[in-house]
Amino acid sequence: MPYELHYWPTIQGRGEFVRLALEAAGADYVDVARGAESRGQGVAAMMHYLDSPTVPHPPFAPPFLVNGKAVIGQTAAILLYLGPRLGLVAKNEVQRLWTHQLQLAIADAVMEAHDTHHPIATGLYYEDQKKEAARRAKAFREERIPKFFDWFESVLARNPRGSACLVGGRLSYADLSLFQLVAGLLYAFPLATGRALQQAPLVASLHARVAQHPHVAAYLASARRIPFNEEGIFRRYPELDD
Amino acid sequence: MPYELHYWPTIQGRGEFVRLALEAAGADYVDVARGAESRGQGVAAMMHYLDSPTVPHPPFAPPFLVNGKAVIGQTAAILLYLGPRLGLVAKNEVQRLWTHQLQLAIADAVMEAHDTHHPIATGLYYEDQKKEAARRAKAFREERIPKFFDWFESVLARNPRGSACLVGGRLSYADLSLFQLVAGLLYAFPLATGRALQQAPLVASLHARVAQHPHVAAYLASARRIPFNEEGIFRRYPELDD
Repeated sequence: MPYELHYWPTIQGRGEFVRLALEAAGADYVDVARGAESRGQGVAAMMHYLDSPTVPHPPFAPPFLVNGKAVIGQTAAILLYLGPRLGLVAKNEVQRLWTHQLQLAIADAVMEAHDTHHPIATGLYYEDQKKEAARRAKAFREERIPKFFDWFESVLARNPRGSACLVGGRLSYADLSLFQLVAGLLYAFPLATGRALQQAPLVASLHARVAQHPHVAAYLASARRIPFNEEGIFRRYPELDD
Repeated sequence: MPYELHYWPTIQGRGEFVRLALEAAGADYVDVARGAESRGQGVAAMMHYLDSPTVPHPPFAPPFLVNGKAVIGQTAAILLYLGPRLGLVAKNEVQRLWTHQLQLAIADAVMEAHDTHHPIATGLYYEDQKKEAARRAKAFREERIPKFFDWFESVLARNPRGSACLVGGRLSYADLSLFQLVAGLLYAFPLATGRALQQAPLVASLHARVAQHPHVAAYLASARRIPFNEEGIFRRYPELDD
């Protein structure tokens, strides 16, 4: 049975962190909401899990993963579940928990990146909160991106198995997610992110190296990789970069 | 060896979610940053883990837990680690992961509650972002609090073991955290939260019941429970409630 990934079909969004793990591992999966309604897929199939009172463990929001009877929401929880199954996390508990911590920090950074264009309310358009977005984006560029990168740089520098990976000597889902965070920030804030990466050369190397992983490279070159766009989490509004 | 909890000493903040679990379980722990520097405690002892290049797994921010060699940051990851050790989570993987998902949703709600008074930047004072805070708080009160409560209400209603707990038939760390979320929201937004609880009677009952748990009640009545204040995550600014 292939894994079922449920996520909004027109954006990378938070689903992309799960998708990258599935793709890097060469896992068999179905991107349900991108499928045809005639085949029981599409957005309606996703909405069932969110709306039906018969679902015992309803996800709060997409993305979520369905594997047999298991329905798992929250990006970091999905990766916690998939990591050992896909061989994308170490076997011992300390390393697993450390990988999860890194993922949770990435989740925080992603939420903050989202809030640069939606500082007031997700239910409003960007155009209705542009002034506030300009202020929030400035703080994000000047304080938060450097703070997150500086921390990941320390993590890489202190890895006793070398600085090629965040945890141990092998690729983990946290490496894939950090790649995606950097890719998203480079799209949304090319100037500020470019500057921040100059101060975080190990993070920059990790981003470049993950992009060359054979399965990841094949995925990035495929039609399955939806381009970044202004409906997703990472949006390029030139007025927010500097 | 007692667990070491490291968190800012003058607020409940995110540390409170960990503290409640330790207290409810009657665990032996030290609240390090509240201790005396002369005994090797205090804020300096906490900052060591954040600043020293000798720490292999540096936390991104407080709270973090130290247990022997393990240093674990991120509230939800700390509870993932403590849950089985404190008997505050079910034994099987599906229930554990579901409990963790609930915790991650609570973490999202906590971050959103924080951003009502700091919608622009954590580095600025509330007074420097009051106008934006008013707009963000309105959306939080009208859309987000009801959405979170509605979801937790469904989770409680669908629990096959009854609606007294979020997961299974026994108290879990997610119940303690939902109690704390509701308590914080009642402090910060008494009017809006009171209205929302009327639509979520199972959530309201859970909040009342957890407060009566013997260990929790004893803790809440003790000097260890710092009162909510306007330096924490949940702040009462009457102009933000309605």
